[in-house]
Amino acid sequence: MTGRERPIVTLLTDFGEGSYVASVKGVLLSITRSIQIVDITHSLMMGDVGPAGYVLSNTSRYFPPGTIHLAVVDPGVGMDRLPLIVRADGHYYVGPDNGLFGDVLRTAVEVNAFHVREEKWLAERISPTFHGRDLFAPVAARLAGGVDPGDLGDEIATADLIPSPIPTPIRTRDELTGQVVWADSFGNLMTNLTQGMVEEWCGDDPYQVVLGWERIRNRIRTFQDTSKGNLAFLFGSWNTLEVVVSEGSAATRLGVSIGEPVRLERVVAG
Amino acid sequence: MTGRERPIVTLLTDFGEGSYVASVKGVLLSITRSIQIVDITHSLMMGDVGPAGYVLSNTSRYFPPGTIHLAVVDPGVGMDRLPLIVRADGHYYVGPDNGLFGDVLRTAVEVNAFHVREEKWLAERISPTFHGRDLFAPVAARLAGGVDPGDLGDEIATADLIPSPIPTPIRTRDELTGQVVWADSFGNLMTNLTQGMVEEWCGDDPYQVVLGWERIRNRIRTFQDTSKGNLAFLFGSWNTLEVVVSEGSAATRLGVSIGEPVRLERVVAG
Amino acid sequence: MTGRERPIVTLLTDFGEGSYVASVKGVLLSITRSIQIVDITHSLMMGDVGPAGYVLSNTSRYFPPGTIHLAVVDPGVGMDRLPLIVRADGHYYVGPDNGLFGDVLRTAVEVNAFHVREEKWLAERISPTFHGRDLFAPVAARLAGGVDPGDLGDEIATADLIPSPIPTPIRTRDELTGQVVWADSFGNLMTNLTQGMVEEWCGDDPYQVVLGWERIRNRIRTFQDTSKGNLAFLFGSWNTLEVVVSEGSAATRLGVSIGEPVRLERVVAG
Repeated sequence: MTGRERPIVTLLTDFGEGSYVASVKGVLLSITRSIQIVDITHSLMMGDVGPAGYVLSNTSRYFPPGTIHLAVVDPGVGMDRLPLIVRADGHYYVGPDNGLFGDVLRTAVEVNAFHVREEKWLAERISPTFHGRDLFAPVAARLAGGVDPGDLGDEIATADLIPSPIPTPIRTRDELTGQVVWADSFGNLMTNLTQGMVEEWCGDDPYQVVLGWERIRNRIRTFQDTSKGNLAFLFGSWNTLEVVVSEGSAATRLGVSIGEPVRLERVVAG
Repeated sequence: MTGRERPIVTLLTDFGEGSYVASVKGVLLSITRSIQIVDITHSLMMGDVGPAGYVLSNTSRYFPPGTIHLAVVDPGVGMDRLPLIVRADGHYYVGPDNGLFGDVLRTAVEVNAFHVREEKWLAERISPTFHGRDLFAPVAARLAGGVDPGDLGDEIATADLIPSPIPTPIRTRDELTGQVVWADSFGNLMTNLTQGMVEEWCGDDPYQVVLGWERIRNRIRTFQDTSKGNLAFLFGSWNTLEVVVSEGSAATRLGVSIGEPVRLERVVAG
Repeated sequence: MTGRERPIVTLLTDFGEGSYVASVKGVLLSITRSIQIVDITHSLMMGDVGPAGYVLSNTSRYFPPGTIHLAVVDPGVGMDRLPLIVRADGHYYVGPDNGLFGDVLRTAVEVNAFHVREEKWLAERISPTFHGRDLFAPVAARLAGGVDPGDLGDEIATADLIPSPIPTPIRTRDELTGQVVWADSFGNLMTNLTQGMVEEWCGDDPYQVVLGWERIRNRIRTFQDTSKGNLAFLFGSWNTLEVVVSEGSAATRLGVSIGEPVRLERVVAG
């Protein structure tokens, strides 16, 4: 960050619509007044670390390098653990070491991680139920103010970090199995199967997508490629396989949600 | 815009609560770091262009001249059409050419329009399902960075633009018929009948408002002018006729929604 | 405020998800372009001044001194009353004089209050149904632009201001009775009983919390201190007594809401 540019801090939490997010913003601005704050989302399912991590890694990448991403989905709040800073491909992430940054770590090329151990970087009085405000925000604000992560904490091996709770897809010759990792506000079901994984698995061979009770062979490119109400799949804006209903909600139609297994099967001609 | 002022970009979409809006913001800030982003709303009904256009024109006018309004309500996403820039009375609008800017065009005095045809202004890889992020945001960010709309696209005749899908009110000697164009979060029903239209139609003569099964003659100025629970109409903060229930929801009470016809009838004395 | 720092204006309203909040932001930026806007919350219960005041005082304190808090929960909109400015411990508050700033006034040490009487500080045309946009925002924007509150209005005695509609807790030797003043998005029930009040009342003596049909003796420090689904109480991030359910919603479990009395009773040993 040059001295002239205002640092960007994004926020991703499961705090919902209330005023808790604003308390975090107040702390950020009290420490580093020039911060430009951008909300990623606060309507994540409470305490559900895996999906939150997918949303984070697929959104944070669109921000400029140097952005600080403050992420608090923290079912273990109040327990004895200190803030984690991750530097991944020029972006900074601050939050609990509970797997929330697992998908960022998996996809980044250059990664360093730091545990913040000194109390002087935290709020004077730490509420045991609101670490977002009293532990994580003060650290993010110091990073935004130009303090080096190495001055804030001790570097630790990234291998020691807790991975994402979402398992890596399993691949055999005939099947590729992942899971639904997010349902967007339109009811589109995002999976953890990237276009690259799928192509590496089956090349140009035909396959079908098995999700819930449905077998889906209708691959589309845009929502206009099929009739209204039709079930289909596509590689969407996150570059992963999505199961969708044209002008409708796949989540409602299939009655499935985050965590549901999704299986790709080769289709035998004949 | 002078060099010192930070450009303002507003956002209006039907993307809901998720993280898609944040991806758009990331792209904006990656291209023009100094942008000040303001959300108009993201809780519009999915794909409903007409009401979105009314909300846009009745909100954007309160921003300072030079503001760039990025609006994405785009049921045709993925089809072959390129971004539209409208300059209307000193404000800029960026989005799909699908009628979304129809109400802005109808009310503005000085208007120019441009189609962006060169791919160099767009994202390198364009997701066919997320033009807000990959087509429209890069254009809005360039405008915010000071690029002239004439350098971004080719000027087109405003007569060639797709108008708002909401029909113009119909006026006879005895009746003036419009429709409900928006229901706000309190359940007040906004129509496309402006105070000017109504006065031009009937001067000081008495009239009643027919909406759903109700005939309403109770015209009020503030919500305190009638008892709690009473149905009434007033000329509201958009300067248009609104049907309201004092401390209640007219939308719920009448069971009507956006698109419902509203008819004003002269009341014959006697 | 120094000339270099951008002034912060926070917003707290009961306007919900629509575009009304954005109109207010447009007015703010039209008058003072450099304002940095931060939303506190807009999902307050419509017209419910008491809880709104608690959220405001417990959130605004985390912002830096000099911040201007524009708060509009205003069931009396359209009636004949002019904007109130409160300066409390270096923070500014702008909104209706209806008790909304009662909790701020109660807890602040140094307070001044001003009524804005001159129309030149307000919008030219004032909608009788949208004072947030036409009365309060122009005043907040002038404060943000550096105008002194004494130049905007006439100082009035703080004793003349309307207090919070929420009564002060009542204390006897055996009981301390307050009420639920807020239910957060997790369903935790916040009361107006501060840790200081409770300790002053009973020192180290044991007590139980009576709320709805429940008698609660299970005091915890963090949500991990009790099993999932257990009812308990703690002194939370606002430093007040909260009734909670670990990984659940106390509001749903007890079927109580804002306004419900909460009674602390000494527990007699034996």
